[in-house]
Amino acid sequence: MQLEAYQIADHNNKLQETHQRKLSYWTGEVANAEEVIQKLIAFQIAIPSWALGTGGTRFGRFPGGGEPRSLEEKIEDVGLLHALNKSSGAISLHIPWDIPKDGEAIKSLAASYGLQFDAMNSNTFQDQPDQPLSYKFGSLQHVDRAVRQQAIEHNIDVIKHGVALGSKSLTVWLSDGSCFPGQLNFRKAFERTLDSLQEIYAALPDDWKVFVEYKAFEPNFYSMTVGDWGSSLLFANKLGPKAYTLVDLGHHLPNANIEQIVSLLLMEGKLGGFHFNDSKYGDDDLTVGSIRPYQLFLIFNELIDGMDRKGMNHATDLGWMIDASHNVKDPLEDLLQSVEAIQLAYAQALLVDRQALEEAREANDVVRAQEILQEAFRTDVRPLVAEARRRAGGALQPLSLFRQLDVRQQLISERGLKTIATGL
Amino acid sequence: MQLEAYQIADHNNKLQETHQRKLSYWTGEVANAEEVIQKLIAFQIAIPSWALGTGGTRFGRFPGGGEPRSLEEKIEDVGLLHALNKSSGAISLHIPWDIPKDGEAIKSLAASYGLQFDAMNSNTFQDQPDQPLSYKFGSLQHVDRAVRQQAIEHNIDVIKHGVALGSKSLTVWLSDGSCFPGQLNFRKAFERTLDSLQEIYAALPDDWKVFVEYKAFEPNFYSMTVGDWGSSLLFANKLGPKAYTLVDLGHHLPNANIEQIVSLLLMEGKLGGFHFNDSKYGDDDLTVGSIRPYQLFLIFNELIDGMDRKGMNHATDLGWMIDASHNVKDPLEDLLQSVEAIQLAYAQALLVDRQALEEAREANDVVRAQEILQEAFRTDVRPLVAEARRRAGGALQPLSLFRQLDVRQQLISERGLKTIATGL
Amino acid sequence: MQLEAYQIADHNNKLQETHQRKLSYWTGEVANAEEVIQKLIAFQIAIPSWALGTGGTRFGRFPGGGEPRSLEEKIEDVGLLHALNKSSGAISLHIPWDIPKDGEAIKSLAASYGLQFDAMNSNTFQDQPDQPLSYKFGSLQHVDRAVRQQAIEHNIDVIKHGVALGSKSLTVWLSDGSCFPGQLNFRKAFERTLDSLQEIYAALPDDWKVFVEYKAFEPNFYSMTVGDWGSSLLFANKLGPKAYTLVDLGHHLPNANIEQIVSLLLMEGKLGGFHFNDSKYGDDDLTVGSIRPYQLFLIFNELIDGMDRKGMNHATDLGWMIDASHNVKDPLEDLLQSVEAIQLAYAQALLVDRQALEEAREANDVVRAQEILQEAFRTDVRPLVAEARRRAGGALQPLSLFRQLDVRQQLISERGLKTIATGL
Amino acid sequence: MQLEAYQIADHNNKLQETHQRKLSYWTGEVANAEEVIQKLIAFQIAIPSWALGTGGTRFGRFPGGGEPRSLEEKIEDVGLLHALNKSSGAISLHIPWDIPKDGEAIKSLAASYGLQFDAMNSNTFQDQPDQPLSYKFGSLQHVDRAVRQQAIEHNIDVIKHGVALGSKSLTVWLSDGSCFPGQLNFRKAFERTLDSLQEIYAALPDDWKVFVEYKAFEPNFYSMTVGDWGSSLLFANKLGPKAYTLVDLGHHLPNANIEQIVSLLLMEGKLGGFHFNDSKYGDDDLTVGSIRPYQLFLIFNELIDGMDRKGMNHATDLGWMIDASHNVKDPLEDLLQSVEAIQLAYAQALLVDRQALEEAREANDVVRAQEILQEAFRTDVRPLVAEARRRAGGALQPLSLFRQLDVRQQLISERGLKTIATGL
Repeated sequence: MQLEAYQIADHNNKLQETHQRKLSYWTGEVANAEEVIQKLIAFQIAIPSWALGTGGTRFGRFPGGGEPRSLEEKIEDVGLLHALNKSSGAISLHIPWDIPKDGEAIKSLAASYGLQFDAMNSNTFQDQPDQPLSYKFGSLQHVDRAVRQQAIEHNIDVIKHGVALGSKSLTVWLSDGSCFPGQLNFRKAFERTLDSLQEIYAALPDDWKVFVEYKAFEPNFYSMTVGDWGSSLLFANKLGPKAYTLVDLGHHLPNANIEQIVSLLLMEGKLGGFHFNDSKYGDDDLTVGSIRPYQLFLIFNELIDGMDRKGMNHATDLGWMIDASHNVKDPLEDLLQSVEAIQLAYAQALLVDRQALEEAREANDVVRAQEILQEAFRTDVRPLVAEARRRAGGALQPLSLFRQLDVRQQLISERGLKTIATGL
Repeated sequence: MQLEAYQIADHNNKLQETHQRKLSYWTGEVANAEEVIQKLIAFQIAIPSWALGTGGTRFGRFPGGGEPRSLEEKIEDVGLLHALNKSSGAISLHIPWDIPKDGEAIKSLAASYGLQFDAMNSNTFQDQPDQPLSYKFGSLQHVDRAVRQQAIEHNIDVIKHGVALGSKSLTVWLSDGSCFPGQLNFRKAFERTLDSLQEIYAALPDDWKVFVEYKAFEPNFYSMTVGDWGSSLLFANKLGPKAYTLVDLGHHLPNANIEQIVSLLLMEGKLGGFHFNDSKYGDDDLTVGSIRPYQLFLIFNELIDGMDRKGMNHATDLGWMIDASHNVKDPLEDLLQSVEAIQLAYAQALLVDRQALEEAREANDVVRAQEILQEAFRTDVRPLVAEARRRAGGALQPLSLFRQLDVRQQLISERGLKTIATGL
Repeated sequence: MQLEAYQIADHNNKLQETHQRKLSYWTGEVANAEEVIQKLIAFQIAIPSWALGTGGTRFGRFPGGGEPRSLEEKIEDVGLLHALNKSSGAISLHIPWDIPKDGEAIKSLAASYGLQFDAMNSNTFQDQPDQPLSYKFGSLQHVDRAVRQQAIEHNIDVIKHGVALGSKSLTVWLSDGSCFPGQLNFRKAFERTLDSLQEIYAALPDDWKVFVEYKAFEPNFYSMTVGDWGSSLLFANKLGPKAYTLVDLGHHLPNANIEQIVSLLLMEGKLGGFHFNDSKYGDDDLTVGSIRPYQLFLIFNELIDGMDRKGMNHATDLGWMIDASHNVKDPLEDLLQSVEAIQLAYAQALLVDRQALEEAREANDVVRAQEILQEAFRTDVRPLVAEARRRAGGALQPLSLFRQLDVRQQLISERGLKTIATGL
Repeated sequence: MQLEAYQIADHNNKLQETHQRKLSYWTGEVANAEEVIQKLIAFQIAIPSWALGTGGTRFGRFPGGGEPRSLEEKIEDVGLLHALNKSSGAISLHIPWDIPKDGEAIKSLAASYGLQFDAMNSNTFQDQPDQPLSYKFGSLQHVDRAVRQQAIEHNIDVIKHGVALGSKSLTVWLSDGSCFPGQLNFRKAFERTLDSLQEIYAALPDDWKVFVEYKAFEPNFYSMTVGDWGSSLLFANKLGPKAYTLVDLGHHLPNANIEQIVSLLLMEGKLGGFHFNDSKYGDDDLTVGSIRPYQLFLIFNELIDGMDRKGMNHATDLGWMIDASHNVKDPLEDLLQSVEAIQLAYAQALLVDRQALEEAREANDVVRAQEILQEAFRTDVRPLVAEARRRAGGALQPLSLFRQLDVRQQLISERGLKTIATGL
């Protein structure tokens, strides 16, 4: 299924009057409205290929219908999202779930939807059928050199697939760790993981980055070998200039101040990418902005501050990805909500009066500093985000249009009710 | 596979001298050693049928070999455990994973291993193939009366299976809840769940109990309809005298004082059963006593205090069950470790000088109260536990014997390497 | 110091044009704008007398200047707040910090500022000079009957003071609990506390309520005798119809779903009052809405839903109080921010399309339900809140006016730089 | 008050028979009993001067009697502890609470009790009377250069005091951070703190170490500038070879794996010291081992492993200090309990069969690895600890002797009932 330009246009036309009323008001109220709109247009968020099907937990999975059955259909799904919001112009693949048989064809297909290939993801947290050695006790940390070698080679394979598709980065998320006190020699696990990462690093093209993702717990429930930003930064520093830390919002201990971590990593020049989601208890992988939207805003506030200071390009100098699970929602609807929440937070953070904020800080005016942030957060930037979409050729209200066009029903007609996307 | 009496006897004979030396010492040191041994002999912990296979997480599962392929083989596994430790004399079944085709035959089989049937567990957190209506959005709380009815009938079915097997209780664990703010009307969800539970309660035989288990989060990540002991107690009180709260150690928010909850529920006469496991982050379902053994001891300290005060029988008046997941260990070995940890905590708690403790408390002598508890906890009660096993006909060192006899290898020979037990 | 009407009028006049522009827009966008404004005018939040001075931690306290030195000056401070925002029309006193020597005079003074007396607060968590018996090991739970009696009598005294001032409720927050395993017999502590509360309850006038506040931890670090909503509800139910649970936002374990607790307590008819603040780690007592504004909105969403269903009056049928600590901000500025945050959350929650929300819920339309809540939360209701203040005679921008008028500086001139308010 | 040798001897004589019976048994059971005893004799834990008086919370403080009124009396108290347990042979001072007027005299006094001076502690988290500039908004991070300078000079002063007393290290614990989003520029706060630390580092004698302590929250409730081990390590690495990270057990987010942090810091050669205490909720500063004794053991397990690998001397190459608060116990009794808990954990960790453990790990034998650790933890090492004390000249049961000799009563006679020790 593919959206036609006239469908978007019809939708926008019907809403245009209302939209214009709101937009006029807000462009009057917000000093840098045009700048915000321009930056929103440039800002693209990668969709992970594994988030296009219904997710589940160890207790069960309740699939919806019309899920993509192949890499081609996954690209089609992201194409649909991008047609609607013009902000999902990239896809992040996961190997071996998405091995492209014909790299060139896949690249052309993606290009036909205006999509690029963001970070490639390797998988050494599951055993694949016919895989010679098991990752039950880890992969890059494994006590057995042969298992480590297998995992290293898999990562190098993933790089090769990525090169063929035009990707420029590899995300290494390791579930390696331990479930019980005593199971692991922490130091050896660190050193073996480092050795393995160094071999992968050596295979990295010069214009690539490798992102070392950290996670506090799950699936290992006692220790994770890359468990926090401190460990990840140790690895990234020991690896070299192409290695960076990747922050996933759900991968922290309770109450962590993630925005401070973001600031410090940017200060150290070692923040590489971001996985967006939201959570209340653990790595709940909920829709972005559904639980703690103010925290999301605060994170963007630090991102902008840190990137601007180093002259980084918001749109291109960090990897922006969603990493969520859709257990009780239509995955495509959920992703539309997530992208919107990211855009809102980004737009609000762009409204922050940074000069006034720094002045308040230098004067220890805590009340004023809070007011400046809340002033931005309390602003209703939805019309600006809608306008950015409209100008880029997207829909004023992507979710409404998705429903009006009965997209899911069409996908079910085309693909069937009982399809199951590869992935978790 | 079945253990022969001579195998146990040989094992014990070889260890007898060492055991006797330790035992003599400790019966000299511990005033109530004989009482402890007697109580340990009577104390049986039910093994859940779903804990006999390798568990997993949403990220994957790494099966071992020789897992039970049928209810009969699950009973055989529990029989093996019980032959080794004489403390696992009950099995807790899960429907529909363990539907007995011939109740009488199953009952006989269990009896041949000296096993009874503990609480029956229903399952409305997963959809079964060919199930007419889905539990995607809940079961007993569902907005649709027909779904609730289906779930009610399933529970009544489970009671019937239990009656046939001689079980006397039903555990209702509901995954019902919501993943996102707005999804659920909390009050209606509570009221619908109550209505449904009342229908199940009405079908409960007079000599049965129903346990309302609570859980703070997972698989729902925003709200759980029976989310804490307060909610569970509300349900139990509204249901009537046959309804009780069940405490699972892993089902709490971080830092919860579980021993205090146990004490209050016993005070209210509403504690019905217990699910043992251990955890560091969430419902990690780790081996009992592997992370926080002192907390386990403190819980037993409250259990004994509260039960003794009401004249309850330790062995029979509460449902004692393990509920763990074995992702990186041999399930049978893990269960042997769990039962041992429970026995140690129980034995240590039996050593507490309760009169001295109450005196210290009434004198606000905090230092002395702590000393009294630590005195018991620091005592090495392993010889007493081993002696209880020996006298009951079990092995002095069950885990060692399990390994010496190559039990797992034999099970693999009999059942195959790639079996998968029904369950999570 | 007292604000003059012309000062408010001048301030509002200068801002009137801008305000009118925003207001016109939003009254056009929001269907029930007038209803929201009316409800906001009626909605009053009590200021706790102990929040008018700089707070601190066990590590230190950094006082500001011009803090109130007497009950009269505390009333003056709340009068200032109320003059500015017309939403702080009540004060909540704390005995013994605020013992009124002449009840009638104090009542008149408060009335002259348009203030009423909200819930009275007793204090049995500290020893006062010349107090015969110590609360080191608890008060209403104490092992010694004489200490309990002293604490009971103190509470009855507080009721008497309250009666004289026209208050209608008593808030009992107990720090009672234990710091170490073993220290406390949980059951006896519960029973003694209940006995004590029953004596206090017996002294309660017929038209009074008693609020049983719960707290998860601090200042006791192992157990709290009224530790969660479950315990508080047990006490309230055992006490009788005048006893209610009071929810303080900061008194929960990490990740607690407070909005669900609110909903269940309203369902049970046992929610009595609310203490507003915000927190990231524990009972941090930060400015309301400064950390988790969306959670605050979700709580108001449940409050409105539950109160409306029972035909309760938003403004009068629950006790609304702030309970925060101002360690690094001017307390009066902080309170202005807190009241504003509460009003915003209340107003946003009034925007929720409840009929549509229930329809979405009954259809399991999780995406739509989330959209409905976010639609309300993302609306910029500041102009409506400002208009409510304006119509009630308050300032459009209370905080700005507070600063323009140099209120703090005037208070310092009147009271001195090194004053210290009674309280924490 | 000073203990006489005969008092210890009498006490030991009375208990000798029982002790000898237990000791004989355990030296028979434990292969390396003599090695454990020798290492215990060498192992000394520093007592912080501020832990000798009753602690409190922001809600209140309930002092005991006979608290030390001067540095001399604090040394006397630690002398008493050391006489009893021969394991508290050092004191850690806190400036400005413990400024020695005559360094030489103080040094002699300490030596007369067999005490050394462990790490010196600076204090920039409180304002002292007559201090020119306030630390309300931080010290080493402060926006105002003059405040930073004042804090730097204070630290340099502390070093000077330490040099005079023979101390060899400075612990810098900063409460610097922020209470509200927006308040702080995280990067500038880091950079200013680093600049300040560099100036302090420059003043450090060649044979000194500086410990950079981290803490997750409190007294700042939004961010802490040295908030976790990752930040602390960044500072330590940027400072140079004399800078190390100090781990305080209570300074982490919920559920943190502290033993893994210990292992990684030792791997990096950057672990400098340790603050022992225990906690359930936050920085509760409870008696060591009173809540999570198994975690304490696991931490010692890593300490021994990491130190042995680098050839470090257990007794001298890390700074071992208690940092607790005694709100409901006699401080000296509490400290005796804490020291005992540390010794037990250390002794148990010395029992771990490290070769077998490594073999189990290399074989992924998780069950065996757990058994090896639990084997050590479940061993009753109290007789070994008592023997180590006895041989060193201390009491078999320090706490019992403390009570038998009525030490507290004597201190009250000498010092009075209403003394208040300087400190928190």
